[in-house]
Amino acid sequence: MTVVECVPNFSEGRRPEVVDEIVAAIAAVPGVHVLDRQSDAAHNRSVVTFAGPAEAAAEAAFGGVAAAARLIDLNVHEGAHPRFGAADVVPFVPLEDDDMAMCVAAAHELGARIAAELRIPVYFYEAAARREARRGLAVVREGGFEGLREAIGREPGRAPDEGPPRLHPTAGAVAVGARAPLVAYNVDLESDDLALARTIATAVRERDGGLPCVKAIGLALDDGVQVSMNLTDHRVTSMAAAYAAVAERAAAAGVLVRRSEVVGLLPEAALVGVARETLRASGLTQAQVLESRILDLVLAGEGEGGAS
Amino acid sequence: MTVVECVPNFSEGRRPEVVDEIVAAIAAVPGVHVLDRQSDAAHNRSVVTFAGPAEAAAEAAFGGVAAAARLIDLNVHEGAHPRFGAADVVPFVPLEDDDMAMCVAAAHELGARIAAELRIPVYFYEAAARREARRGLAVVREGGFEGLREAIGREPGRAPDEGPPRLHPTAGAVAVGARAPLVAYNVDLESDDLALARTIATAVRERDGGLPCVKAIGLALDDGVQVSMNLTDHRVTSMAAAYAAVAERAAAAGVLVRRSEVVGLLPEAALVGVARETLRASGLTQAQVLESRILDLVLAGEGEGGAS
Repeated sequence: MTVVECVPNFSEGRRPEVVDEIVAAIAAVPGVHVLDRQSDAAHNRSVVTFAGPAEAAAEAAFGGVAAAARLIDLNVHEGAHPRFGAADVVPFVPLEDDDMAMCVAAAHELGARIAAELRIPVYFYEAAARREARRGLAVVREGGFEGLREAIGREPGRAPDEGPPRLHPTAGAVAVGARAPLVAYNVDLESDDLALARTIATAVRERDGGLPCVKAIGLALDDGVQVSMNLTDHRVTSMAAAYAAVAERAAAAGVLVRRSEVVGLLPEAALVGVARETLRASGLTQAQVLESRILDLVLAGEGEGGAS
Repeated sequence: MTVVECVPNFSEGRRPEVVDEIVAAIAAVPGVHVLDRQSDAAHNRSVVTFAGPAEAAAEAAFGGVAAAARLIDLNVHEGAHPRFGAADVVPFVPLEDDDMAMCVAAAHELGARIAAELRIPVYFYEAAARREARRGLAVVREGGFEGLREAIGREPGRAPDEGPPRLHPTAGAVAVGARAPLVAYNVDLESDDLALARTIATAVRERDGGLPCVKAIGLALDDGVQVSMNLTDHRVTSMAAAYAAVAERAAAAGVLVRRSEVVGLLPEAALVGVARETLRASGLTQAQVLESRILDLVLAGEGEGGAS
């Protein structure tokens, strides 16, 4: 029994009763467990994190998308965050290293169902992309709800992967994807030098020739400065490697690391990766972790229970 | 819902059918999952590892103790390992840092039940000890079945914490305890110098004034030498601290670390500890680990299912 994570983003962050209803639709599917929900009023957007066996997760995601389509009207939605759908993005995330193919299959199945049953156009992105150009979410979502409304039927390059060649009048479109678990990881420096944090961010991020699968910006904090990173695939660049890259460059400028922090959740595999690298423990596997072993046994038992 | 581990040791390692029956009694409790079982013929002893919510774990442990008492007669038991009971030791082990009190409570509840229902004398040890002198298992078990048979009713210091002041005629006594999870952790050196490995082992182990909660010996391997450690409380001395202590002393002798390894299972909390120390991420908690979060939710759901 393999559990996957799903992290849908919905274009509603100000009406808790609407988010409640979306979350309830997700949580109603047996075997699915809602891990987290966060609403941002400025972005007018909510992020729900849930987990379950792949098939149950796809079922739950469909329930969430359908509820969002019923309750959210993008014509009256205002918020700082780019968006083109009531359910805006729905990424499936493998927890163990081997399960990406299963997540891609779940994304494709969900996309077909959204198109068929809800008549909402669907775009597949990242590992689920059917066109190489659509791997990046920014490309898929370019122009947002208002921009895509015009382009979708006119520009062949903007036609959806599934569903009608026009936006849903109120729910817009949905981007459905599969991606490695993202780790939001920040390294704070013992310094007020924002320029230094920005220089280090530029040096370590992939876009500017730094570490693969690292996005980074420099930020000012109340008590110093921060290199704020997203590790988009911790198997490629681990927290330990990102930390070392920042610490080394800071040290070259005579600055120490104050602390580092993980924002939100992280997969156990990312911790195994840190131990492997920092302790030269290359043989360490997730199968040795008690919680992982117990979770596998419990989920297998839950599966049996559900079948009987 | 909090899951704890329990690692009972039974005085039977030669008759698999007896161990089968003991394990079956443990596994029969809903919510309990048997993770591992190992039998040693020379020691004539078996170790069962299982996990579950504390109450279910105590129920399962009672089932295992009762089965052992029914099936094992210490009067005819021979084996190299010290022992005084058919079920010899029953330690509860917290997986998360805050759950030691819950494990102590489970141990006390189990001990009272063993005394009342099976009429076997019970001694509490380690974190569950009611007398400071009984923290160490060796003190509690001194003399084994044969020695305690005489002493238990005669020496006030050997009176049990629960139950009758005489050994059960065939099942002896039981030591019930609570302890931190043990991590078997080895650091291999790029060297054939066994004396160096032994010197480092002596320097880092608690017994000789080294790191607290560390046991260590130096060993020769096929491809080098090893400092083989038991970390008896990774919250006190983490794998990262143990690694650093060994690596530092090896470096002083001009020797590099080849690799390190964890033997068997380790708790997720030990990996969180490594990340905290090596990445200066002191704010990182196990509640941020996806698998931990999912396991808590799944077990809570399992609990509901069991009650309905």
